Amino acid sequence: MESLIVADKTSLYHNTTPSSLVPNLPLNNKDGSSSTSSTTFNSYINLDQGDPVVFKEYWRKKSEECMVVIKGCELLSYLSDLRSVCWFMMPELRDAIKRLHALVGNADTNDMYIVVGNGSTQLFQAALYALSSSSSSDDPINVVAAAPYYSEYQEQTDILRSGIHKWGGDAMKYDKNEAYIEVVTSPNNPDGSIRGPVVNSKCGGEGKLVHDLAYYWPQYTPITHMASHDLMLFTFSKCTGHAGSRIGWAIVKDKEIAKKMTKFIQMSSIGVSKESQTRVAKIIEVLCDSYKNFKLGGLSKESELFFEHSRRLMMERWEKLREVTKQNSDFSVPKFPQAYCNFTNETSETYPAFAWLKCNKDEDCESYLEKKLKILVRGGNRFGSDPRYARLSLLGKDDDFGEFLKRISIDMNEFRH
Amino acid sequence: MESLIVADKTSLYHNTTPSSLVPNLPLNNKDGSSSTSSTTFNSYINLDQGDPVVFKEYWRKKSEECMVVIKGCELLSYLSDLRSVCWFMMPELRDAIKRLHALVGNADTNDMYIVVGNGSTQLFQAALYALSSSSSSDDPINVVAAAPYYSEYQEQTDILRSGIHKWGGDAMKYDKNEAYIEVVTSPNNPDGSIRGPVVNSKCGGEGKLVHDLAYYWPQYTPITHMASHDLMLFTFSKCTGHAGSRIGWAIVKDKEIAKKMTKFIQMSSIGVSKESQTRVAKIIEVLCDSYKNFKLGGLSKESELFFEHSRRLMMERWEKLREVTKQNSDFSVPKFPQAYCNFTNETSETYPAFAWLKCNKDEDCESYLEKKLKILVRGGNRFGSDPRYARLSLLGKDDDFGEFLKRISIDMNEFRH
Repeated sequence: MESLIVADKTSLYHNTTPSSLVPNLPLNNKDGSSSTSSTTFNSYINLDQGDPVVFKEYWRKKSEECMVVIKGCELLSYLSDLRSVCWFMMPELRDAIKRLHALVGNADTNDMYIVVGNGSTQLFQAALYALSSSSSSDDPINVVAAAPYYSEYQEQTDILRSGIHKWGGDAMKYDKNEAYIEVVTSPNNPDGSIRGPVVNSKCGGEGKLVHDLAYYWPQYTPITHMASHDLMLFTFSKCTGHAGSRIGWAIVKDKEIAKKMTKFIQMSSIGVSKESQTRVAKIIEVLCDSYKNFKLGGLSKESELFFEHSRRLMMERWEKLREVTKQNSDFSVPKFPQAYCNFTNETSETYPAFAWLKCNKDEDCESYLEKKLKILVRGGNRFGSDPRYARLSLLGKDDDFGEFLKRISIDMNEFRH
Repeated sequence: MESLIVADKTSLYHNTTPSSLVPNLPLNNKDGSSSTSSTTFNSYINLDQGDPVVFKEYWRKKSEECMVVIKGCELLSYLSDLRSVCWFMMPELRDAIKRLHALVGNADTNDMYIVVGNGSTQLFQAALYALSSSSSSDDPINVVAAAPYYSEYQEQTDILRSGIHKWGGDAMKYDKNEAYIEVVTSPNNPDGSIRGPVVNSKCGGEGKLVHDLAYYWPQYTPITHMASHDLMLFTFSKCTGHAGSRIGWAIVKDKEIAKKMTKFIQMSSIGVSKESQTRVAKIIEVLCDSYKNFKLGGLSKESELFFEHSRRLMMERWEKLREVTKQNSDFSVPKFPQAYCNFTNETSETYPAFAWLKCNKDEDCESYLEKKLKILVRGGNRFGSDPRYARLSLLGKDDDFGEFLKRISIDMNEFRH
């Protein structure tokens, strides 16, 4: 699942930032992204949201190749493909999504239904609707996830105080004999762990699973198996970094569930932008073509392939972060096991999109980073976890990431005593 | 509010179509729109949904002028404008929307907040959320609209069995001393009437209004005043016919309500496609520029201006329809009063996007049209009204509209006795 952008101006970067601090916050560039190119210790660095601008440089080189041209009379109709359960999905997007998963080997799309949504956020709610409304229970179904869980699941579940589903908290602690939906996020947001379902089936409640695989792409983690769960969510935002397009998709085994998800999206937004669908299909085609050309001995260098390039970026950031936290025992980050990646044919570890930082010298990591180092992050309590932890985005601009490392180092050297 | 597209394949065109009839249904063209170019009496004509393809020919002539080009590295970030309450709205779209309303004179945007959404459907739900959650009542707030009301309001309100709002039915019959939201749709979908609020304030319940002005554009109705209500909804789908873009907007007086609507959209879809926002901004600019050039004595002919052109299309369809219903007393359509339009500087009547057809020889208009004439429409009961009525889209293709008129005429001449 994608990370939250907080709406209110006084809290856009951060939930607890006092409004008096707002003038210090970096304002957005023309493209909407934030900038701290002239960062000093007087400016805040925002590592709260997972805005995936780290991949922008890559796409700059592919700008012309990925270009889409849309004329005035195109894409007028609501309808896309009346033969498909998801009638608003364009066939070229469906084909591109299948091709991408076949290339990466991360999810099985054979004999599965694909439902496109306005980001995986909308699909998460569509999944809850579809699974809840097909539950035999009259009571709201419990939605649970193992802590630390994505900070937005709870509010996305409860925003309308639904009578069909309600947030049930930490899946590890779930012991009710009632129907439930367990959200399995793997690699996990915020902590990057590889996960499976955890609810104890001995409780006897009827359980359904939603697999949120937003980060199951080769730049973040080894592709160890072809996932083939009942209901899987993916988002283009975290796959290539094109978050502004708001395209996500679900891969669904059961036709009736796919129909209900489609109905939810119909009732919420009568479909999904065709401009975005067209563009995402094009970008996926370019991405897949570059692998095809490379394998045919064509012009592409291996380092110029998207997942290889982006995996190197993530690996470099993690290496730098580990170097700093190794020298500064005030902070620590999780270690990840090595695994063989069927996509890269190499053994490597997970390089998550977020660092789940533990602050060893303060009980409140978020507050410490904000007050002492002017780094805005999302505290552990937001994820149903310990406030000694905080989540930091590693998908931001180079400048911001570099400045973050500098501040953590300065903190160690100058502010310690 | 926009009209429903029914998702299920067996009912995509129509709620009651038996699945055995599906093979006869027209399949979609490459652009997703349906076609009956080879219509015979063996094929169904679908006038159920309001897919606005009638305007396509106009945009074909403007295709190059309205062309947008989007490169691979553009529009990556979630964020658009951190200075705006609606942080995911692109400034160029906001400016274009304000320019369009200033040109048409249909809504006041001065000192108002604009919130963009995935169609006005999402904004309707965002409005319900914002108004309900700022209500002083602990019980679900009643959402009402005067019958006949848009067929989807009820399900959009109740889909998650929300604890903060619930459908309350016909506003004319509302007599509870409880908080309510009245949806005022003007011109009304389905019947084209010009409306104001109707709930009797003597009941004492705290009332809030949502004005759904999807059809308050010069091609459908005279622009009699500059609307300046607390919360107004518009959709690009019905303004220019670009329904595939899924762009709607709300114009909101109260900053806190605009913030809550923004939050709802954030929780539902983390914003709105930037590709669509870019394209809609471009099309609005081209539309407004053509008026500017015309007024400056430039190249455009008056008949080539969008609202003049589309108004003539709607007028011609209504004239043909009135001609047929005049000759065939089995069917009747509403009459509309004349009014002076501040935009065209002429007196004219309303030419609604839908015909609210009354069947005088059968108690069930929908069933009659389907069984006797193979015309798929939406029956009056779906709008909280009498089944002797049915709603027919007048926004479809010329072929379909022509075939519809033919069948109504044939019905009179050949099937009567």
